[in-house]
Amino acid sequence: MSESNATLTRKVAARYAGDGRIEIAQVVARPPAEGEVQIAVAFNGICGTDLHILHGHMDARVTMPAVIGHEMSGTIAEVGPGVDGWSAGDHVTVMPLAWDGTCPACRAGNEHICQNLDFVGIDSPGALQSRWNVAADLLVPLPERLSLRDAALVEPTAVAVHDVRRAELEPGERAVVIGGGPIGVLIASVARAFGAEVVVIELDDHRRAAVEALGFETLDPRADAVGWVEEWTGGAGADVVFEVSGAAAAVFGAVDFARVRGRIVVVAIHPEPRPINLQRVFWRELTIVGARVYQRSDFDRAIELLTGGEIPIGALITDVVPLSETPKAFAALEAGGAMKILVDVQDTGIGR
Amino acid sequence: MSESNATLTRKVAARYAGDGRIEIAQVVARPPAEGEVQIAVAFNGICGTDLHILHGHMDARVTMPAVIGHEMSGTIAEVGPGVDGWSAGDHVTVMPLAWDGTCPACRAGNEHICQNLDFVGIDSPGALQSRWNVAADLLVPLPERLSLRDAALVEPTAVAVHDVRRAELEPGERAVVIGGGPIGVLIASVARAFGAEVVVIELDDHRRAAVEALGFETLDPRADAVGWVEEWTGGAGADVVFEVSGAAAAVFGAVDFARVRGRIVVVAIHPEPRPINLQRVFWRELTIVGARVYQRSDFDRAIELLTGGEIPIGALITDVVPLSETPKAFAALEAGGAMKILVDVQDTGIGR
Repeated sequence: MSESNATLTRKVAARYAGDGRIEIAQVVARPPAEGEVQIAVAFNGICGTDLHILHGHMDARVTMPAVIGHEMSGTIAEVGPGVDGWSAGDHVTVMPLAWDGTCPACRAGNEHICQNLDFVGIDSPGALQSRWNVAADLLVPLPERLSLRDAALVEPTAVAVHDVRRAELEPGERAVVIGGGPIGVLIASVARAFGAEVVVIELDDHRRAAVEALGFETLDPRADAVGWVEEWTGGAGADVVFEVSGAAAAVFGAVDFARVRGRIVVVAIHPEPRPINLQRVFWRELTIVGARVYQRSDFDRAIELLTGGEIPIGALITDVVPLSETPKAFAALEAGGAMKILVDVQDTGIGR
Repeated sequence: MSESNATLTRKVAARYAGDGRIEIAQVVARPPAEGEVQIAVAFNGICGTDLHILHGHMDARVTMPAVIGHEMSGTIAEVGPGVDGWSAGDHVTVMPLAWDGTCPACRAGNEHICQNLDFVGIDSPGALQSRWNVAADLLVPLPERLSLRDAALVEPTAVAVHDVRRAELEPGERAVVIGGGPIGVLIASVARAFGAEVVVIELDDHRRAAVEALGFETLDPRADAVGWVEEWTGGAGADVVFEVSGAAAAVFGAVDFARVRGRIVVVAIHPEPRPINLQRVFWRELTIVGARVYQRSDFDRAIELLTGGEIPIGALITDVVPLSETPKAFAALEAGGAMKILVDVQDTGIGR
């Protein structure tokens, strides 16, 4: 490709433009730089974090107009200079974490939560664009037998794998998942794949029915959920509790489900300090652990689980829309009812 | 000893009688029953829990008049039927935990926090009496080279060992101890013995000076303690934070000291739910662990540390009073300034 041709390449992007707006724009696609590849993005899932961005909660972090999106799959379109081991046509996803490698967290081996982490898709441009230049060291290869559509779930599944790993879940343990949205269902599915028995607590009747249809026990939090878990566990309490709801009442009650030496994993983002019954934490020697993003091994395991049929992909992907309808996808997520909506980035929807 | 003689044996006890009162009473000492030994109690330290009892906070648990006390040392006076391996004259302390062995916590190997735990000295009679009948399986042998006076610190030192073990503290790590009272000093000392560098945060000027005299770094929480810890740890944050103060502000601030993947150990009793910055717990993947009482190995390690000179016994024992002055000892502890006051139970102070 000649220099002039490369310069003329255009791409379509969905960008957060501030004030709750997503705009669809045609922009010039520059060729991949040293160490980069250019991905023809196939699918991109919309996540709760993207909704936070749309609501302006992260305006201090994003540079507008901001191409967001970080749950993606695609095909390598072009390999930049100095990149080895990748070829055009490879199916890939991206682990969207760029760490500095020098901060104390990185030096201690916790690069995934680097103190100066660049979360790609928030702090730098993301995947909601037809051509995406990404540092090659963020690439994760996808097996051919996993469709690109399903592979858009690798990143959120990796979140769930990380949560389950942080819980140090053992086969045969009993887990309570508070919250039956996409992350709750993913955690429940991963925990089941790790050999746990799982109950999901969910307020919304429709979601609860959907979770039950996946073969999980469910509980309405308005019933005596603590009593149910007590009985379920022979008076012990649950080995692990995943707090996925983000609700103050849920995190307050989470410790009441846990057995002596049980673990509570804080998955949800709680923007406000939350009252915690530390007397119970002390009395039962509970452990509360934070779990954020993932490590590379979580991506690998997520791909295994997705290809192995352990994740209810069909139930999770409730809609797929063309790139031009990204704003509608956000609106549908806000309205509730949807689980995961994918944007088909190949189908720009422009010129129809 | 004939049956009639045994019946006539009398002992002196300090008993909680309700309404904030400690009474000194002479009562009949029955001989040790099957499986028990009778201990001639030497020394008994007064602990924060005993103060809680005096204040009526635990009236639902104690049976009045209640002989309290659980930080003790003594000599076996008499061995009851069916007890092997113990002889009159043996120096002993007691690990005051009687578990049922059948609850889910016990069956999972967490007998020390049995769901139906009998904490001896609270739920059943304790050591503030000149003769104390105790189940032989609660005995812990004391080495001759540890004086009975110093051995009264075994139990609180075991608490600190347990806290440090729950923190999974590694040599070379940096620990922040919030609270410079007796438990704070014990935790700081044990953490140092485990190879950690320690800073103690304490509001009271006198206590801070006393802690400094033991060779610890100290911080006034009114200064920029977070900034100090940041600099001390090269921008990382502390590996471990021990919350010993019980103050809401302290536990709220505890997470701010911790490095990525740092651990916060909840040692203090927080009777009210406390606001916790879960956003920080999530962001840094922190772990909050509860630590309650101890296991047998903690007692063994405590005895090693005390005999090995690792615990500042001289600074911790600020007074020793005869049994008859137990009420004064409580009053002195409430007034503040004292660290640990021992009751010399051998010196009943009666008939002087």
